[in-house]
Amino acid sequence: MKPDAAETVYDGELISVTLERWGEHAREIVEHPGAVAVVAIDHDGCVTLVLQRREAARRTLLELPAGALEYGEDPLACGRRELREETGLHGGRWRELARFYTTPGFCRELMHVVVAEDVERGDAAPESAEQIEVVRWHVSELPDRIGELEDAKTLTGLLLYVNDSRK
Amino acid sequence: MKPDAAETVYDGELISVTLERWGEHAREIVEHPGAVAVVAIDHDGCVTLVLQRREAARRTLLELPAGALEYGEDPLACGRRELREETGLHGGRWRELARFYTTPGFCRELMHVVVAEDVERGDAAPESAEQIEVVRWHVSELPDRIGELEDAKTLTGLLLYVNDSRK
Repeated sequence: MKPDAAETVYDGELISVTLERWGEHAREIVEHPGAVAVVAIDHDGCVTLVLQRREAARRTLLELPAGALEYGEDPLACGRRELREETGLHGGRWRELARFYTTPGFCRELMHVVVAEDVERGDAAPESAEQIEVVRWHVSELPDRIGELEDAKTLTGLLLYVNDSRK
Repeated sequence: MKPDAAETVYDGELISVTLERWGEHAREIVEHPGAVAVVAIDHDGCVTLVLQRREAARRTLLELPAGALEYGEDPLACGRRELREETGLHGGRWRELARFYTTPGFCRELMHVVVAEDVERGDAAPESAEQIEVVRWHVSELPDRIGELEDAKTLTGLLLYVNDSRK
């Protein structure tokens, strides 16, 4: 699949938009390098979530630690870096759990969800001056508490992790 | 939460981008009216999925029937209309299952997932000339087949439906 023509119609700081022509159809597509979210489980069987201030949603959301990929970057390497920066967690056994498009009707973003089991605690080093609030949920609580979450990657990552554990 | 200033920096046909200023931070946000995805279960215990050509992903994805909300529209009414247009399915018992942000770091889109149980078959009436390919999976297959899916709303909707059924 390849468009007949493509043109950058908005080139911002974080977001750009491409207008593609496919036969008679035009498609406006938000460009994105992809992202990684981490389901990090510690020795106590707890998963770590972070409270994120989300201006687009006009509220704070509870989410998996996550970050955008650099173009060409390995998702596991990106996940390790983001997890340590945001929460201080490091080490453990890592694997890729899933990859999916967050909103494929108009956006190129592919989200990778990786699992890190038996991670160890350490000091966080967030990029911004803001303090990141960390929340821990025991894995056994997930089926009942999942309804408290409102972020697609977090819902999908945790539900897939629980689904996998039940197989 | 309210920005100090906001300005439309791209105004396209389907997408627009707002640049918001929050203190020292600038945020580029893709505007979206929200959307509805439908977990429709028929009398045989099968869920209906549709194959969607997704130019942004450069491939065809298997997804829940879904569509964008009109501003102010009731999600259940939108779900009923989209489901009938795309698949011909109608009737049944409807309820809202969840709502979540598809990618809240840079996009306003709130996705509503609704469930329609005991739906009845009928004739589809898709808006475009393209034929929509419909696929049916039995609900009992979902835990094992979920890894075949690559769309966030579809993964989340089906996993939440299965999680709810297990409670």
